[in-house]
Amino acid sequence: MPDPASKRFPPEQLEEFTARVFAHYGVPAADARLAAEILGLSDLRGIDSHGVARLASYVGLLKDGRINPKPNCKIVRESPSTATLDGDNGLGLVVGPKANEIAMEKADAVGTGWVAVRHSHHYGIAGYYVLEALKRDQIGWSMTNTSRIVAPLFGADRMLGTNPIAIAFPGLEEPPIVIDMATTAAAFGKIEMAIRKDVPIPEGWAIGPDGRGTTDPHEVAQGGALLPLGSVRERGGHKGYCLSAMVDLLSGPLSGANWGPFTPAFTVSHGDPVREVGIGLGHFFGAMKIEAFIDVTEFKRQIDDWIRTMRNSRPAPDTDGPLIPGQPEYEAEKINRKEGILLIPAIVNELRAIAKDTGIPFD
Amino acid sequence: MPDPASKRFPPEQLEEFTARVFAHYGVPAADARLAAEILGLSDLRGIDSHGVARLASYVGLLKDGRINPKPNCKIVRESPSTATLDGDNGLGLVVGPKANEIAMEKADAVGTGWVAVRHSHHYGIAGYYVLEALKRDQIGWSMTNTSRIVAPLFGADRMLGTNPIAIAFPGLEEPPIVIDMATTAAAFGKIEMAIRKDVPIPEGWAIGPDGRGTTDPHEVAQGGALLPLGSVRERGGHKGYCLSAMVDLLSGPLSGANWGPFTPAFTVSHGDPVREVGIGLGHFFGAMKIEAFIDVTEFKRQIDDWIRTMRNSRPAPDTDGPLIPGQPEYEAEKINRKEGILLIPAIVNELRAIAKDTGIPFD
Repeated sequence: MPDPASKRFPPEQLEEFTARVFAHYGVPAADARLAAEILGLSDLRGIDSHGVARLASYVGLLKDGRINPKPNCKIVRESPSTATLDGDNGLGLVVGPKANEIAMEKADAVGTGWVAVRHSHHYGIAGYYVLEALKRDQIGWSMTNTSRIVAPLFGADRMLGTNPIAIAFPGLEEPPIVIDMATTAAAFGKIEMAIRKDVPIPEGWAIGPDGRGTTDPHEVAQGGALLPLGSVRERGGHKGYCLSAMVDLLSGPLSGANWGPFTPAFTVSHGDPVREVGIGLGHFFGAMKIEAFIDVTEFKRQIDDWIRTMRNSRPAPDTDGPLIPGQPEYEAEKINRKEGILLIPAIVNELRAIAKDTGIPFD
Repeated sequence: MPDPASKRFPPEQLEEFTARVFAHYGVPAADARLAAEILGLSDLRGIDSHGVARLASYVGLLKDGRINPKPNCKIVRESPSTATLDGDNGLGLVVGPKANEIAMEKADAVGTGWVAVRHSHHYGIAGYYVLEALKRDQIGWSMTNTSRIVAPLFGADRMLGTNPIAIAFPGLEEPPIVIDMATTAAAFGKIEMAIRKDVPIPEGWAIGPDGRGTTDPHEVAQGGALLPLGSVRERGGHKGYCLSAMVDLLSGPLSGANWGPFTPAFTVSHGDPVREVGIGLGHFFGAMKIEAFIDVTEFKRQIDDWIRTMRNSRPAPDTDGPLIPGQPEYEAEKINRKEGILLIPAIVNELRAIAKDTGIPFD
């Protein structure tokens, strides 16, 4: 349930504010606008944890000089279908789109493009990048490692990030299938919410500092960890750990970025990792030109058929039946574009503080 | 616990028998040997559900004329980094390696290779293919759709297969990290085992014919379904469903193969799907040349460091600490190569029946 004191803001107003804030901290105008667009899309799609709610974290790192506002991204290695990009310590919201663009151009040229990125920072929602690929009739892939908060199965320490995977498939008449998922059983935002409300969390979400499963959200924040998708060995927790490892290995060692527990922290208040094993944070992007495999229209027709087949299959009791990945976000975007983005008072206050700090009017 | 009446067989003996059986049913000698090698590797690595235990299913389809023993595989579409292969209704154990070979050759040529396959059958363990890529200092990807047994989240019907994903990363001094996982909470083999022992299964593995969660394994076999990884919405069941969908969409619509509930059955005793939406069963292979992204030795050193970092992290209580993906299979292979493959009496009897049928001596 949203806080009754929450308020809706026009998406254009939030994006304009965000772009001006990034520009204020030295980000070139076009890059600032792009970064704002990514945060804005996240809010539009109802993924409110990754939208303007994160602006304060990015600003903190920019103010602290930990992010280079004017990165000179460089391809450090390249083949016809691959590249390794050094993000020069830039905003992930700026470096990510550049890397994704390279992947998509390579896909247009030789069928697929794959770009490993190092020396970057958090890049927003993984789904943004794969939605871009759809515009070119490509299947996009997007992954990133993130700072440590997840325990490997049978582990007691925070060793991995929530390490999301995104991939999308275009329909013809139907909206696209968009998969965008962290590789954990639950998002950390849900732990924070339970702390705020002081209610227990379900079993299978997390462990406490002693490494045992816990239903106390405070324990998770105080040195505990999230569990990978599958939660426990009996229900496939090793598989969620495998997926998190896959994302980490493609984003970290393959690009030359840090990995696992050494991935840089997202906010200045978190401590630095104990050692550096690479440069900055890493991403991994892919783009596959559908036409390189099969006729595009035929493919989209099959996607429509797939969507309708799943949607029309028998619902489990007390449910509305199977959902199509990305559809809830698609519906949210339609509503939020019309009605505006709902922000809770805590976020509004954060944005007002940024407004005061920068002299950029917010509301 | 293994059945006390189980018996160990030298891997060479099983592989020789398997190859001769495939050849007996018209598979050319080299292809028969390759198919036997894939089943053999599965047994060696301790994945006994996918080894000679499946020979009777392959034989059933060959005898029934449902599999073409001498396929003429054809590339139907191609770009520098991609291909779509029609397997001409051949054994997946023969078509799969050919497709994987094309992916690896393209990776050597342009950095990566991606091959979608249609008109194939079950291809054995997904892990076989990615282990091949390791031999060339490539990161291999392997996926396949399989006949329906899994319900989408909020669904009551079998609409998807167990749809595995495999990917592997080479170490320098350490054995490789090998991820090879079905996208379900538990394997169907575990349900079969519980039926045989008449014991309940844990919550979160499956639903009964009415679409409700069940702990009765008989209900699962009698029209129920497996649940995707994550099991229920609260613990991320939508994510397991997303992964299963991803594998299905890359294997089916992208290649022109059947998908979802229309994927062909693996045994002659299962009914045919209600309609055809493509040709046969589909796979998806990828290969990425490590050197195209980063120095190979540097990459392998980082993988060693990653493995040791995870292995040396703090264990959860009552565990031996985090495992490295693929390590249990690596250890099993060392033991099974020396001591032989342990087969339960039911499988030995199946193989003896095949021996009697074909006149090929088994034991």
